[in-house]
Amino acid sequence: MSIPVPPVPQFAPVELTLTSLKGLRASGVRAGLKASGNPDIGLLVADAPLAVAAIFTQNHFAAAPVLRSKQHLERSKGQLRALIINSGNANACTGEQGDKDALEMTERVAKAVGCPVEQVLICSTGVIGQKLPMEKVRTGIDAALAELSNDVEAGRRFLSAIMTTDAFAKEACARVGEGLVAGICKGAGMIEPNMATMLAFMGTDLDLRAEQLKRALPLIASTSFNAVHVDTHTSTNDTFLLFSTRQHKAPADWSRQLEPVARRLSWLIARDGEGATKVTTIEVTGAANDDAARAIAKHVAASALVRTALFGNDPNWGRFTSQVGNVREIKHPKALRCVLQGIEVFTRGEPTAFDRAAAAKAMAQEDVKLELQLNDGPGRAMLMTSDLGYRYVQVNAEYTT
Amino acid sequence: MSIPVPPVPQFAPVELTLTSLKGLRASGVRAGLKASGNPDIGLLVADAPLAVAAIFTQNHFAAAPVLRSKQHLERSKGQLRALIINSGNANACTGEQGDKDALEMTERVAKAVGCPVEQVLICSTGVIGQKLPMEKVRTGIDAALAELSNDVEAGRRFLSAIMTTDAFAKEACARVGEGLVAGICKGAGMIEPNMATMLAFMGTDLDLRAEQLKRALPLIASTSFNAVHVDTHTSTNDTFLLFSTRQHKAPADWSRQLEPVARRLSWLIARDGEGATKVTTIEVTGAANDDAARAIAKHVAASALVRTALFGNDPNWGRFTSQVGNVREIKHPKALRCVLQGIEVFTRGEPTAFDRAAAAKAMAQEDVKLELQLNDGPGRAMLMTSDLGYRYVQVNAEYTT
Repeated sequence: MSIPVPPVPQFAPVELTLTSLKGLRASGVRAGLKASGNPDIGLLVADAPLAVAAIFTQNHFAAAPVLRSKQHLERSKGQLRALIINSGNANACTGEQGDKDALEMTERVAKAVGCPVEQVLICSTGVIGQKLPMEKVRTGIDAALAELSNDVEAGRRFLSAIMTTDAFAKEACARVGEGLVAGICKGAGMIEPNMATMLAFMGTDLDLRAEQLKRALPLIASTSFNAVHVDTHTSTNDTFLLFSTRQHKAPADWSRQLEPVARRLSWLIARDGEGATKVTTIEVTGAANDDAARAIAKHVAASALVRTALFGNDPNWGRFTSQVGNVREIKHPKALRCVLQGIEVFTRGEPTAFDRAAAAKAMAQEDVKLELQLNDGPGRAMLMTSDLGYRYVQVNAEYTT
Repeated sequence: MSIPVPPVPQFAPVELTLTSLKGLRASGVRAGLKASGNPDIGLLVADAPLAVAAIFTQNHFAAAPVLRSKQHLERSKGQLRALIINSGNANACTGEQGDKDALEMTERVAKAVGCPVEQVLICSTGVIGQKLPMEKVRTGIDAALAELSNDVEAGRRFLSAIMTTDAFAKEACARVGEGLVAGICKGAGMIEPNMATMLAFMGTDLDLRAEQLKRALPLIASTSFNAVHVDTHTSTNDTFLLFSTRQHKAPADWSRQLEPVARRLSWLIARDGEGATKVTTIEVTGAANDDAARAIAKHVAASALVRTALFGNDPNWGRFTSQVGNVREIKHPKALRCVLQGIEVFTRGEPTAFDRAAAAKAMAQEDVKLELQLNDGPGRAMLMTSDLGYRYVQVNAEYTT
C-alpha cells in the first residue's frame, strides 16, 4: 500500500451503502440488548454466496463470535450468505455458554436463509463478561429476518445496530469504474475493551475471488484499521470483513482502489476517539526497515505525553523526539528530522528557531501530520492516533462497567 | 532483589540526609536559572574520594552532562570528590556548546576543590533545547562553593536545588547496623521530558568498593527507579548515582538493605506523577520468564485505559485482562488470574462474582496492588505506575514549553 498518504479520495456521496450492492438485503432491529433502546441486532443476507475474507483480533481472549466466525470461514472456504451481528453485549469472557450461544445464533440464521451454517458469520460488540440474554436475541433475529430489505434505509438500520459508544455513524464508499466499494464500521478509537471495539464491513461488486480478498486484506488493513493506534488495546471482538458480490471485472490495481475507503473508515474511528479533537497522522521514513519504522511510530503514538501535547496544540518537539530517542534500534539518532504540519521543528540534534505561535496555530486542525525522518534505511510506516484530552479521562474514569 | 514487595521498611526519621554521612558537605543556591527564583545550583563535596557507581538514561538524545559524567566515571574508575548539579535547564539538545558548558562546570569545581576533573560528576535538569546562561552558572557555582556545609539544612538546600516540577521534596534514609543509607531524588513521574525528569542520589557509609556498587546498582534499580513506569518516556537526563564513604563494615546482604530506600524514593516519584492520586503496584507472577513478566507488566502499566480506570476507582477487569491478552508471548491465557487489592476479579477466562462496590472502595487508597498470575513458568516482575486523571491532562496539555 502506498505511503505517504495519497490525496484524499473523491468519495461517492454516502447515499450509497452496503445494500447498494446488488443482491444484498439488510435489517437492524431493537431486541432490548442495549439499555438505550437503540437497534442492537443487525442482519445482512446475500441472495447467493459471496466471496469473503476477514481478519480478527489477535487478543488471547478473543470472544466466542470471533472463534466461531474463524471456524466457519475456514470450513466455507470463503463463502458468505449471511452476517448476524449484535451490539450491547460482546459475548466475550463468557465461557462455554458463550460458544453455545454464538453457534445457536448462526444456526438460527442458516436455517431461515437455507444455507450451510458455515456460510453464516457472526460479530458481537458491547459489554464483556456477561452472558447473552438469548430469549431477546432469538426474538431479535426473527424480527431481523422478517425486516430484510435492499433499500438504503435498511442498510442504515444495519449500521445503527452495530454502533455502541460511537458519536456518529461511519460509512464511506467510492466508485471504481463500473463497480462500487461500500463500507461501514463502528468504534471510538481502538480504545474501549468493555464496549468491545472495532467492527468494519466492506463490500464490493468487483469480481474478486476469496483468495484474492484474503491476500489483499492484510495490506489494506496495514494502512487503515491496523494503522489506528490509540491505546495499545486491541479488543476481544475486533473484526474486519471484506466481501465481493462478483459482478464487475476488477481493474488490476483494485486493492489500491479499495484502500482509500478502508483508510477513510479508520480515520473516522480515530476521529471518534473518546474526546478526540483531531486525528494525527505520524509518518516515519528512513528507518532501517518497515518494522523498525512501525515500532517508532507506535512508540510515539502510544505516548500519553505526546497525545496531551497534541490536544493542547503544543508543538512540543521535546516529547516527540525523546520518544524516538527511546527506541533502541535507531542507528543514527542525530539524523532525526522532525516536521510538524510542514514546519521543521527539530534537526541535527537541536530544535530549530521555528515560530512557536504559528506552529501552535497549524496544530489547531482536524488533521495533523507529524513527520519523523531518519537516515537508517528505506523503512517507512504510517499510524493515525487521536489526541488525549479532558473528555478522554471523563469517559474512561467515570464510566463504570 | 526480592519480589513481591517486602514489608514497608522502618525508615529512619528524615532528619537525616546526605550530609548526615561523615565527610560530606553540600550547598544549594539561587543562580537565576529558574524563573521562580528557587535554588537551582547544588553542590556536594567529599573531604576524600568516595566510591561511586551510576546508571544513566539510555535515550539516544542523552544530554551533555550525562555524556560528560559517563566519561568521567570511566576515567576515575569510580572515584567521586564532587557532584555539581543545576536545575532550570537540562543542557540537552544543545549541540557542541552544551558539551563545552558541561565540561567548564566540572573544571570550575575541580579547580576549587583541588581534584582531577574526572572526580567531578555533573547532572542537569530542566527545559531542553536551550543553551545554559553560563554567566549565571559561573556565579552560582562560586556561591555554592562558598556556602558548603555539613549540616542538615545545607543538605536540604542541595535537595531543593535539584527539584523542578516536584510537588514535594523526596528523601529517605535507613539505618543498617552501625551504618546509614540516605537518599534524595527528584522527578514527578517518569513523565516530563521538557523538565528533564529523574535524578536520584543515594549515599551510604557502609564500606563498599566501586565495583561492588556497580554490580549491585542494576539490581537495586530493577525494583525501584527502573520499576516506575508511567509514560514509556525516559528522559534525556535520567541519572541514578550511588556512593559510599566507606566507614562501616557492610553486612553480607547490604544490597537488600539498600534496596528499600531506593524503592521508597521511586515510590515517591510515582506518587508525584502529575495529578496522580495513588501508586499502583502491578505484580506479574507465573510468566514464562522474568523478561516476559516485565513485558506484561509494562503493557498494562502503560495503558491510558488502565490508568484512567485506576483514577476512577473502577475495578475494570476487562481493561486489565484484555491488555494481558494482547501480549503475544503468553502460552496459557486461560490460566490468567487477576487479583485487585486482594479481591479475585477474574479467573479461568471469566470474571468472578465479586462485589463491585467493595472493590471500588478498596481501590480508593494511596497504594493499590494489581496481581496478574499466569501459569507459564517462574517469571515474575513488579512495576509501579501512577493513575491518569484530569490534572494530568491539564499539566501536560496546557503547560507550554
